[in-house]
Amino acid sequence: MDAFETVVERSIGDAEREVRDALVQEGFGILSEIDVAGTLEAKLGVRRRALKILGACNPAFAHRALEAEPALALLLPCNVVLEDIGDGRTRVAVVDPRSLLAASGGDAGGELDVLGAQAASSLERAIAHLAG
Amino acid sequence: MDAFETVVERSIGDAEREVRDALVQEGFGILSEIDVAGTLEAKLGVRRRALKILGACNPAFAHRALEAEPALALLLPCNVVLEDIGDGRTRVAVVDPRSLLAASGGDAGGELDVLGAQAASSLERAIAHLAG
Repeated sequence: MDAFETVVERSIGDAEREVRDALVQEGFGILSEIDVAGTLEAKLGVRRRALKILGACNPAFAHRALEAEPALALLLPCNVVLEDIGDGRTRVAVVDPRSLLAASGGDAGGELDVLGAQAASSLERAIAHLAG
Repeated sequence: MDAFETVVERSIGDAEREVRDALVQEGFGILSEIDVAGTLEAKLGVRRRALKILGACNPAFAHRALEAEPALALLLPCNVVLEDIGDGRTRVAVVDPRSLLAASGGDAGGELDVLGAQAASSLERAIAHLAG
């Protein structure tokens, strides 16, 4: 699974605020939020560095993609993974939507290719903005 | 992307309650919930049949899988897709976690194969329970 990734010299909380802003500017909202580290600690008593998964979705892209390939619902939204990697740094990775489309098993080509490329450009810009 | 799927003669609301119960019995909690149809209507004014995505996760499986393959965070949780298909029927599909592991690009084999097979059996039982 390909991803757009950067490491920022910010806490995970600051990085999350910035990535949310950058995604909104690219037309992506956050539809879900999972505190992985908190859940694992609550359920298993396991302690690990902070790890969160945000579910990003551009409604216009998602609508067109679902019309073309309903099975894509098995893989939406695009995960944005935030991980505290120590020393005040956070790794931010966003899944490449072209990889999701490929993994969905949908017929490559045509509209899905165009949508995937557009969504990938938007997410890549969001991550570049964060790194800038 | 492979999935375990069934069609039940229930409303989407009833099917959601049943699938949540069945997943809990198999050790999976629901960590996220996206009302796809509601979001598309609110954001785009598009009306379509009800479509929801629940994010299912078994904390013990997720913990061990993330230890073995951190990139799996790009694909977690396992999506459970509920779709109103008309005439009081609902399609319920759960992504096969072995497909997620394969798509994550992690090294197949070893612990990940064992975890994937265990998680797949649990989810398959949950769907079979729903259909029964």
